[in-house]
Amino acid sequence: MNKEAFVISQFTSPRIGDDGAVVGEWVYSKDIFAQNVHFKREWMSLAQIAKKSMLVNLSDAIAMNAVPKYALIGVTIPRSYTHAELKELTGAFLATCKAWGVELIGGDTTSGERLTISITIISHTKNPVFRKGMKEGHVLAYTGRIGESLKGLKTLMRGGSLGADSRFMKPVLKAAFFYKAAPYVSAAMDISDGLGKDLSRLCAANNLGARFTCKHTKAQLCSGEEYEMLFSFDPRYERILRRIAEQTKTPLTLFGKAVRGRFRCPCKEHHF
Amino acid sequence: MNKEAFVISQFTSPRIGDDGAVVGEWVYSKDIFAQNVHFKREWMSLAQIAKKSMLVNLSDAIAMNAVPKYALIGVTIPRSYTHAELKELTGAFLATCKAWGVELIGGDTTSGERLTISITIISHTKNPVFRKGMKEGHVLAYTGRIGESLKGLKTLMRGGSLGADSRFMKPVLKAAFFYKAAPYVSAAMDISDGLGKDLSRLCAANNLGARFTCKHTKAQLCSGEEYEMLFSFDPRYERILRRIAEQTKTPLTLFGKAVRGRFRCPCKEHHF
Repeated sequence: MNKEAFVISQFTSPRIGDDGAVVGEWVYSKDIFAQNVHFKREWMSLAQIAKKSMLVNLSDAIAMNAVPKYALIGVTIPRSYTHAELKELTGAFLATCKAWGVELIGGDTTSGERLTISITIISHTKNPVFRKGMKEGHVLAYTGRIGESLKGLKTLMRGGSLGADSRFMKPVLKAAFFYKAAPYVSAAMDISDGLGKDLSRLCAANNLGARFTCKHTKAQLCSGEEYEMLFSFDPRYERILRRIAEQTKTPLTLFGKAVRGRFRCPCKEHHF
Repeated sequence: MNKEAFVISQFTSPRIGDDGAVVGEWVYSKDIFAQNVHFKREWMSLAQIAKKSMLVNLSDAIAMNAVPKYALIGVTIPRSYTHAELKELTGAFLATCKAWGVELIGGDTTSGERLTISITIISHTKNPVFRKGMKEGHVLAYTGRIGESLKGLKTLMRGGSLGADSRFMKPVLKAAFFYKAAPYVSAAMDISDGLGKDLSRLCAANNLGARFTCKHTKAQLCSGEEYEMLFSFDPRYERILRRIAEQTKTPLTLFGKAVRGRFRCPCKEHHF
């Protein structure tokens, strides 16, 4: 067990294990976005970093069928940063909050060697979607196209650069689709660590396995930070979900079925 | 303006500026507790660090007259930490949560050079106490004895060591007193940066100054991380507040009065 998993395994609240913790109609999610773990400084502008750090947190809320309302931001900032750089960071936080109708209600800053952003998103839902809820025979699906984020990461690691709109730089959250789809969804999470890894978690949460019904390349299976929605549904909802996908112009891939057994992720853990 | 203050100044929600942000009956507070900023690793055990990081966050909730209910913990952990060390950390988080009736509902971990703990506390109140609300003529008071934390810090910086119960190692929160006192309190915050600095913030929030009615040493004025309650109240409540202090065995010092003007903190900013 890696150290991250070990620490989380020590915390045993039944509210832990989803993309967010549900308390009444509120959902709380918290993700850290850290220099040299999730990004290198030379890859992205501070505005891009701030925006992506918000989006990866908003993605958790969406995966729970919750509407993000409030944010708290904790930032560890290198002492060398100028006021102009700080303004670029805070400006991007505020712009992203505004674009998503989120009110930034608090936070904390401290100094440190590397830029680290820890965000808490408070979101609202009357009908949360959990990782648990998938049944044998349910269809497995994801939104969008996957694989590009890992390709982008590899380009960056080779010293190349990426366009501002590439997936690694700027996830495109499928909120419009997912909020409409949620009533027909039995279980969901976002794809943050790769379809393979996240599917293994979704399956484990339901004591089920998965059978793929269409071929996927290793790049598609193992590309993390896609921030697409991974979910399952009862086959009788296929038509309505396809219609919602069409209405919201969201690519939708039905790629498998939940079966008895266990699903093992075929990807190596990757860190840079 | 220092960088921390600059970043916070860019965030302009009216909910920002107190020890926590109030949304309905919920209060959200978030504080970062970071190695080489708030502590050095050799000064304290991991259990002490984890416990103090929780207490400084719980202190914010108490200062708002809110009862802590849930916690989210984000930790940046050096790769060198062993499983035994991780267990010491998580064990202390859980024990502190248990002692305060707080449910740990989520979190995130990542690796990094220095141990950094970012905690979000979700607390409940029907009657929040804010920094704003103090009027001219109100009495200024604080709980406990102050000054010891700075003395402890100086001892540590000279290479000395501290007892496990010394203030710097383990703040003693005055929850029992403050929840009873809150109905009679006009404005409050906790003393995290020193009486002088925090009083200047309390005064600024109310466009008032302060006149001291008893002498304080520089050590008392400038000792941060006391986590005592600093508050103001209408003089007609003096008797009842003294009685609550007696009932809860809480030292209470009435040290001044809110007056017209402005209060300037006489302390230097200290970093180590």
